[in-house]
Order: sequence, then structure tokens, then C-alpha cells
Amino acid sequence: MSKTNLLNWFKEGQITIPTVLFSQYKAMKLDEYELVLLLQMISYLEKGNEFPTPAELSSAMTISVSECSDLLRRLIQKGFIEIQDGFTSDGIRYEKYSIEPLWEKCIDHFLLQQKREEANAIQQEET
Amino acid sequence: MSKTNLLNWFKEGQITIPTVLFSQYKAMKLDEYELVLLLQMISYLEKGNEFPTPAELSSAMTISVSECSDLLRRLIQKGFIEIQDGFTSDGIRYEKYSIEPLWEKCIDHFLLQQKREEANAIQQEET
Amino acid sequence: MSKTNLLNWFKEGQITIPTVLFSQYKAMKLDEYELVLLLQMISYLEKGNEFPTPAELSSAMTISVSECSDLLRRLIQKGFIEIQDGFTSDGIRYEKYSIEPLWEKCIDHFLLQQKREEANAIQQEET
Amino acid sequence: MSKTNLLNWFKEGQITIPTVLFSQYKAMKLDEYELVLLLQMISYLEKGNEFPTPAELSSAMTISVSECSDLLRRLIQKGFIEIQDGFTSDGIRYEKYSIEPLWEKCIDHFLLQQKREEANAIQQEET
Repeated sequence: MSKTNLLNWFKEGQITIPTVLFSQYKAMKLDEYELVLLLQMISYLEKGNEFPTPAELSSAMTISVSECSDLLRRLIQKGFIEIQDGFTSDGIRYEKYSIEPLWEKCIDHFLLQQKREEANAIQQEET
Repeated sequence: MSKTNLLNWFKEGQITIPTVLFSQYKAMKLDEYELVLLLQMISYLEKGNEFPTPAELSSAMTISVSECSDLLRRLIQKGFIEIQDGFTSDGIRYEKYSIEPLWEKCIDHFLLQQKREEANAIQQEET
Repeated sequence: MSKTNLLNWFKEGQITIPTVLFSQYKAMKLDEYELVLLLQMISYLEKGNEFPTPAELSSAMTISVSECSDLLRRLIQKGFIEIQDGFTSDGIRYEKYSIEPLWEKCIDHFLLQQKREEANAIQQEET
Repeated sequence: MSKTNLLNWFKEGQITIPTVLFSQYKAMKLDEYELVLLLQMISYLEKGNEFPTPAELSSAMTISVSECSDLLRRLIQKGFIEIQDGFTSDGIRYEKYSIEPLWEKCIDHFLLQQKREEANAIQQEET
């Protein structure tokens, strides 16, 4: 019994997120709802669901399905999420989300911050 | 140059979160601001800062310091975060946050959901 | 340049392993070569390669391809790895590895150890 | 009961390792015993034990305490692990291990491999 529960907990899995995302999301013009929606997206992708619906994404959030659709559209427009085409082995087209653009932006902001800190360090040495 | 950036990125670290938290936080009566505040807390604890201030916690969030203080107080009252006393080797008392209560609640909700699913499975077999 | 390197590092990914595996593998009758082979397997599965060959698995190890084949066979016989059948949408059969049996054994050993520690604690109270 | 087990499992924690370490350790002149010893070290550091003894490190390995001491010495000589001095608030000196040199070497090998792949790509274009 206990073993089944433990195994199920284990299978639910975990996501590993660079802390830079938590320190940079405001600078990246994301708010808390958008951040949590992205984390839900990452959880679904991790579990193998590559194209979760707004109904699925919002089911564990405090927002409605239509609010979730709006947020999702905005995240695509702002270039955090991308829809990619895939083809199955028998030629059927399907769509999947990619969050690679999110990590690109995250790295951009990290490198920008590093540059700013280096510049500050040089300025402090000069004075 | 590039190596320093990569090493700094690596040192910033990451946090690993059970996906159960993302599927259960609404059921646990948490909203998106509280969830993100908890994730900020986990990031700080992970980096070795055991008692981050509301100013630190809110600095990367879209909320003000005083809103953050209110959220923090609520999370303690609702039993998601605990303040623990510690003593340094020379007897100086210090305070630190513990998020173990969060994981206990998370596990409670997970086990509850498992039970519900088992009950459903039995009911479906009977009909 | 630096950004590309950082993005590539990020895309290489990471694996998250319960520390229980490191404290229990000897008790589970695994040696260091078998443990590292399992970690290589987990890395490949994580990157989406569901049926890595002995040549792939051994390429980053200090053992030969044929030694790796032997180890792999032994891990399957001892029930740490399973070969599962899958079918693509157009009915083509394929094989993939599953390491769920590894985690089941790991949980078994963890629960056994917990029981032993509880028994010890009770015995100490009685004396 | 089941909850305690799950909570204990959770508290045992996990370690998150870049897959680059698994693909590069042989190129970094490490063998499987040294790799597993490093993973044991990382597990102990993660749990807050900053200076595990050879007896602790070897307890879950198939090697003896003295073999473990030898391996440890070699890893320090080859520059994968560093011993750092720390001072408690009341001025008592203590020692702790740092595995930052491991990650530096890992990043070096990753960047080297990237360069080689870029060079190969250019050469292939030219032919």
C-alpha cells in the first residue's frame, strides 16, 4: 500500500527550474499568473503531454479557461512559447509547444545582468 | 569569458519541485502569488539564505514589500511556513524559515487524491 | 557566442536522482559499473533516446562495448531494467527500456531500512 | 504511516546532475569509482555534511575505507575536489570540501567539445 503511494509520488515526477527564472521573470515582463502558467506548461511537457489544452493548464490554477486562453495567446505573442509542427511516422501532422524561447530570454537577461554587475565592479574600482 | 558566464549560471543553481505542488496548490488554498512567494523562499533557502526579508523576497516579484509581508504572515498563519529557532556554536539565537509544513500538506493532498481515485476505480468496477 | 554555449549547456539537460539510490545501491547488489551504466541509461531516456545501444551506453564509460552488453543483460536478468514493447501510430513495433523496476527496488530497500530503524528505536526505548 | 514514509523519502532529497558530467567523465580522466565517489560527496554536501569522512563516503560503496581514502587523495591531487577553510562565528576553524573545481573542469570539457563540433561542422561545409 505504502509502496504504491511512494511509487506513484515518484512517478508524478518533478521539474527542475534554474533559480534565474525566479529572479528575472519580472525583468522579463512576466507576472505571477504568467510565470505559474509557464510552470504548469513545463510540468505537462515533462509528463509527455506536448500540447496541453487551456482547460488542462487552467484546471489546477485559480483562473478560468478563457483567462488561461488569453494568457497563453499573450505568451505566444510575446515570444515565450512557440508552437511547433511535428509529423508522426505515418505522416500525420501534430502541434506541440516549445518553451525554448523562454530559456533563451532567461539567458539573455542573465547575461545582461552579469554585464551590468561587471560594469559596476569596474566603476567601483575606479572611484 | 564565456566560461565565467557558464560557471556563474551553474552556481546560481536550480530548484527541483515535485509536480504535485503545481497540481495541488489550488486545492491547498494557495493562490498564484502565494505559490510564487513560496518558490522565491525555496530559492533563497537553497542558496543558503535561511531568513530572507520581505524586501528580498518581493524584490523579484510584482508586489510591494508590505504586500509581501502580509502574504508571508498569512502563509505562516495558515501553516505553510514555520519560523524555527537556531543557535550558533557560541550561543547566539537566530531565526530561520522551514518549508517542511508545505511538503507535509502537499503529501496530505496527494494521498487524499490517491484515495479518491482508488474509490472511483472500485465504484466503476462495480457498475 | 557565449549565449549559444550557455543555451547548449542548458539543453544538454540534467538528471535528478533520489539520494536513496546512492545510499542503497550496494544493498541492492549493484556495483559501481552497474550504477554508472544505469545513470547513463537514465541520461539517454531523459534526452528522448528510449533504446540506447551498448555502443552508445559504453561510449562515455571506461568499459568495452561487449562488457557493456554483458552488464546490460545482467541488469535485465536481475530485474533492474525492463524491455517494453511499443507500437507507433502506424503499427510498427519498437522496443524501449524502462527503469521503473529500478525505482521499485529502490523504494523496497528504503522501506526496509525505515522498518529496521523503527525497530531499533523501539528496542532502544525498551532497554 | 504511509505519510511518514513518503515524508522521509522526500526529506532524503535528491541531487540534480548535469548530463554533461556523465558524457565527459572519461574524457576528464575519471573512472567509475571516482565518479561514484564524487556523487556520494555531492549527496553528503547536499544534506549539509560538509566534510564527510572516508568511512562515511565508502559505507555505501563496494570499496574499503582505505581504498576510499586513496581515491579521495587522488581526486584532491588531480584538482577535482578542494578543501576549504571555514571559521565559525566564535572563531573556530573547520574544514569543508568544495566540488566547484569539478564543475569548472566539466565546463572546460563541454566548451572544448563544442569547439570541436563547430570546427567539424565548418570542415564538412567546405568539403
